[in-house]
Amino acid sequence: MLVGDLGEEALLKELRSLFAAAAPDVPVGIGDDAAVIEVPPGTQGVWSTDLLVESIHFERGWQTPRQLGHKCLAVNLSDLASMGATPRFALLSIACPRDTLFDYLTEFCYGFRDLAAKENICVIGGDTTGSAKGLIISVTAGGNVPMGASILRSGAAVGDTILVSGYLGGAAGGLRMMLDGNEEKFPEILNSLREPWPRIDIGKTAREQGATSMTDISDGLASDLRHICEESSVGANIELNLLPVSAEFERACQYYGWDREKMILTGGEDYELLFTLPGGKVKDLQKEIKKRSAVPLTAIGEIMPLDFGIRLVDSDGGSRALTDHGFNHFLTNE
Amino acid sequence: MLVGDLGEEALLKELRSLFAAAAPDVPVGIGDDAAVIEVPPGTQGVWSTDLLVESIHFERGWQTPRQLGHKCLAVNLSDLASMGATPRFALLSIACPRDTLFDYLTEFCYGFRDLAAKENICVIGGDTTGSAKGLIISVTAGGNVPMGASILRSGAAVGDTILVSGYLGGAAGGLRMMLDGNEEKFPEILNSLREPWPRIDIGKTAREQGATSMTDISDGLASDLRHICEESSVGANIELNLLPVSAEFERACQYYGWDREKMILTGGEDYELLFTLPGGKVKDLQKEIKKRSAVPLTAIGEIMPLDFGIRLVDSDGGSRALTDHGFNHFLTNE
Repeated sequence: MLVGDLGEEALLKELRSLFAAAAPDVPVGIGDDAAVIEVPPGTQGVWSTDLLVESIHFERGWQTPRQLGHKCLAVNLSDLASMGATPRFALLSIACPRDTLFDYLTEFCYGFRDLAAKENICVIGGDTTGSAKGLIISVTAGGNVPMGASILRSGAAVGDTILVSGYLGGAAGGLRMMLDGNEEKFPEILNSLREPWPRIDIGKTAREQGATSMTDISDGLASDLRHICEESSVGANIELNLLPVSAEFERACQYYGWDREKMILTGGEDYELLFTLPGGKVKDLQKEIKKRSAVPLTAIGEIMPLDFGIRLVDSDGGSRALTDHGFNHFLTNE
Repeated sequence: MLVGDLGEEALLKELRSLFAAAAPDVPVGIGDDAAVIEVPPGTQGVWSTDLLVESIHFERGWQTPRQLGHKCLAVNLSDLASMGATPRFALLSIACPRDTLFDYLTEFCYGFRDLAAKENICVIGGDTTGSAKGLIISVTAGGNVPMGASILRSGAAVGDTILVSGYLGGAAGGLRMMLDGNEEKFPEILNSLREPWPRIDIGKTAREQGATSMTDISDGLASDLRHICEESSVGANIELNLLPVSAEFERACQYYGWDREKMILTGGEDYELLFTLPGGKVKDLQKEIKKRSAVPLTAIGEIMPLDFGIRLVDSDGGSRALTDHGFNHFLTNE
């Protein structure tokens, strides 16, 4: 069955029943002109939005529709996680050509819904429509954070330790494998691209334990670290040897002959958290995270004065400026 | 200058400076991973989203980019207005081909920003990216309403008067004129399509004065009235003679030989408010609205028991079932 044959009203009905969910802080969910939500007293709302376009951000062959649904929600939740917020709400809009398989869309929605259910997110609204070409997904996510407690990019102070969750470079490796048509090996790396997990609990714990600045790694470590340094008016010193990579990523680098350093430093879409914390608090936080999660938390460097710049200590002890190559979504479809 | 030559980072910077706005309830606006907002104590949040796709919802030739920017925000604010809410926040995502003129985008954003400024809306976030074909706009709008006071589609009671703001059929007439290439006459009607105004003040006043159900007319009167009747488990009796149309619309109907009745009943995109109110309160509300606005408020019929159905009294006194023709965005690009 194609979406165009089913019609918009029937599709909307399906999606509504799929996402119908009662929650005490959602007095009015999907189905009216707008949703009504409640924010706990003493908290502030935290909101973010992303637009994901087929053949710009993804190709359908790169992942199952279920994984794509998961990912479209995950990248938004990651933005809230990086504020130290608790995500609660999502709005999902889908534009697709009329020859899209209805089963593809429902599988997509299952993936979206499964992550929503796991992270206690209520889908409160959305829109469906046709598109001239390709699948287009817009997700807006909302949540809350205790009054005045959100962790911005601008709070890093000289002497703070720089930490990162999880492993770097995996999504870049997965993308490389998809583009080169190498799918037979290294499933963990492929999964970093296909099914990233938002680090919600780590973000909240980091906030509670005194993180001074935070962002998620969507554009690549170098790029996202630069955002923190610019907003905080500081420099940074990163040690290449400390950057966490998975054993599988190391093997894949050797196997395919990838530029390991470039992938780790400038590969995007890892959706790990990058944050700063006063040095004295690092061990306690690492202990706390270890109790709750298998995701490692690694100290990778130190915040320096602004005039130090953003520098990288090489594996041979040499120091050089850390440059990034900004990602441009207007160029990727060439 | 084309968007593709400018690059994503430069475009983002432009948009950020354009939408940078301080507001006491927006402690963190555009520029971090997510925005932080405050909702007044004793209120609930109200949120809605729309996805607008070139060649499905609009053609660039139908209006200036400024009008398009205005409209993309207006249709979202209209959803909040129809809950009786006060809109406060908007997130704007834009996907466009790399050969889009940068001036086109900035003009679009001026239109969006001008309506935002006029209605006291703070643009708190968004996204920009490329698209394979055509302009794609996603807008999410948020606001607030006093605790438990939002006006749903489900509250209409037998005996309530049915009211509508403004005039009907104008946007359908404007669309007809665009499709037929007739632009030389009837500027008011063209404007109903090009630059609809959200009825925020009327929605709030209707809520304060006891409206029992409300929606906005986006799909056409017949369709949107059916939504209220279905959600409220009631019927309705509408009098064709009472339906408000502008003098210019009457003239255009005669001039072009349009099917007047069909346009009034099933023409979408008027973004007027359709609501119900206990009969005894109608005169007071009309008096109150007249003090504040030139937009007329017209009683067009009465809520009836469910088994009455949804019926229309013709101009010759005959009564018949009011049928609607659902709009299907998957069919319009054929």
